Amino acid sequence: MACKRAGRHTSKIDDVKICAEAAIVGKKEGDGPLGSCFDMVLNDDEWNEKTWEKTESKMQREVLKLAADKAKIGLNEIDRVFSGDLLNQCIGAGFGLRDTGIPFYGIYGACSTMIEGIGLAAMSVDGGFADSAAAVASSHFCTAERQYRTPLEYGGQRTPTAQWTVTGTGAVVLNPGVRAGDVAIEYVTAGKIVDKGVKDANNMGGAMAPAAYDTIYTHLKETKRRAEDYDLIVTGDLGKVGAEIVTDMLNADGIKTAEIYNDCGCMIYDAEEQDVHSGGSGCGCIASVLCGVIIPRLRRGDIKRVLAVGTGALLSPTSSLQGESVPGIAHAVALCRAD
Amino acid sequence: MACKRAGRHTSKIDDVKICAEAAIVGKKEGDGPLGSCFDMVLNDDEWNEKTWEKTESKMQREVLKLAADKAKIGLNEIDRVFSGDLLNQCIGAGFGLRDTGIPFYGIYGACSTMIEGIGLAAMSVDGGFADSAAAVASSHFCTAERQYRTPLEYGGQRTPTAQWTVTGTGAVVLNPGVRAGDVAIEYVTAGKIVDKGVKDANNMGGAMAPAAYDTIYTHLKETKRRAEDYDLIVTGDLGKVGAEIVTDMLNADGIKTAEIYNDCGCMIYDAEEQDVHSGGSGCGCIASVLCGVIIPRLRRGDIKRVLAVGTGALLSPTSSLQGESVPGIAHAVALCRAD
Repeated sequence: MACKRAGRHTSKIDDVKICAEAAIVGKKEGDGPLGSCFDMVLNDDEWNEKTWEKTESKMQREVLKLAADKAKIGLNEIDRVFSGDLLNQCIGAGFGLRDTGIPFYGIYGACSTMIEGIGLAAMSVDGGFADSAAAVASSHFCTAERQYRTPLEYGGQRTPTAQWTVTGTGAVVLNPGVRAGDVAIEYVTAGKIVDKGVKDANNMGGAMAPAAYDTIYTHLKETKRRAEDYDLIVTGDLGKVGAEIVTDMLNADGIKTAEIYNDCGCMIYDAEEQDVHSGGSGCGCIASVLCGVIIPRLRRGDIKRVLAVGTGALLSPTSSLQGESVPGIAHAVALCRAD
Repeated sequence: MACKRAGRHTSKIDDVKICAEAAIVGKKEGDGPLGSCFDMVLNDDEWNEKTWEKTESKMQREVLKLAADKAKIGLNEIDRVFSGDLLNQCIGAGFGLRDTGIPFYGIYGACSTMIEGIGLAAMSVDGGFADSAAAVASSHFCTAERQYRTPLEYGGQRTPTAQWTVTGTGAVVLNPGVRAGDVAIEYVTAGKIVDKGVKDANNMGGAMAPAAYDTIYTHLKETKRRAEDYDLIVTGDLGKVGAEIVTDMLNADGIKTAEIYNDCGCMIYDAEEQDVHSGGSGCGCIASVLCGVIIPRLRRGDIKRVLAVGTGALLSPTSSLQGESVPGIAHAVALCRAD
């Protein structure tokens, strides 16, 4: 068998391209600085559905259809879909993709889910197990607030380190046959769980930053690359607080990130104007920014090589009530524009 | 690249063996007809932990350590672990495997999680992406009851079709290098979501049976095998009600299952003596029966070839409250004793 192991955490991908990608976001995200980049911006939180959970499911279904349309294939030509979300029992994915008929793998990596899914989908195609595979992830501000925090009507005050859950979703369709000009997947780095004992569930960025550091550091070491080999290293949703921490941690190791590092949670909103405190979060944050902004920039040749790092906080309201700290995880994929 | 696609749903696995497996169950499962087969039977529901959720996490951690010990490797020699459970945000897996340092993929397939995990772990090894990989899944009667149903103290009456969530966990460690006498993974079949409109959340077996049928039928068709090619076709946790339905559906298609079909939910308890109504359920049901009973039987040569089919119901309490039906999914792996 072909050895595609570049290290304990990192696998090399030889021949997988992103055929197409699509992103759908909510109104607030459409009003943000990246608003014009997404395939679709919703007018309201409901999208003609009776509950926000059904809206989130519809978002998953529609974004996958959009990506398949752009790839010029039917859903019946996709061999596997890897999908997840933040809702209990991942009902955004389960109900959203229920009627697609695509062989389905449910995944849960909290806000790292999109990158976890892209990594697994890439391996399923590169290993020859499937001819094509898709990854989808979503979050919705209203479903997340009522599940994790307080009823929206309560109008709870948010702390300065709190983040705003993105209403958004993204989907990619992958297959083999990389040619010049394609966006290819080069490496997949699987993160380990890192828990530094942060117990403040309103400081997810701080809790997840050490995991992001660990995965970026491990990726560079195992691939023998330097940060400068990337035009962009982008984390999922550390927000302003977490992005500063991971920058400090990397710089302390001599890994220079100035001008090449950014965070999707910082990019998607205008933090001052849109009152989002530390920035955006949720599975839909990196999913929508990656599919709406970053992959298209690679496709156009504006940038050549990107390390996309999804970051997740593996807590639940129950674990916090039981006094537990917040375990973090980060999964990475290296993307490049093929020569 | 090597083509390992046997059909849209099914991938062929060329060289992956189960190095070792382990199972831990609760007291009630230890009192059942398979009680003597498991590696460890707990004396109570707590196992010296303050909450049942912490107990479930401990079960995941300890069963993986047991399997690694039996495989004579350290946790630091496992390249990937795929794990999940039924708890909101999969905290059984996240907290259970937090300190292992193993690159972690969280998965959610409801009670199909163990087979989903074995399939993904097998592909990661067979594709050369990892030298070794593990899969773990768990459930705990007390964590499931209070999350999904009513407080245990309430003593709610259960319906005749209801199942009893297994307190149990199982783990496998996989690597390449199949030799005569090893238990090898031959095929992985990924299920699609099937929803026939069952809305009774107390009849999971009935809701999942059509998905189990679909996956078994698809597996046999894509591999060009007959049911009789297996010594055992075993579903995850359809219980008595679901097992009868899937048997009827298969027999109506001319697929004969008499004497070779069983269900882990029917095997793990004495339904009459142990008052479990339709039988066992939960991620830990097929996980513990597969790792405690079925794989060891293959290892001893008592049986030669098994199709293990994990079945999951992708609902949540929220989806049921919103009037939704219960989507089912089933993932399968074909195991055999190598000549």
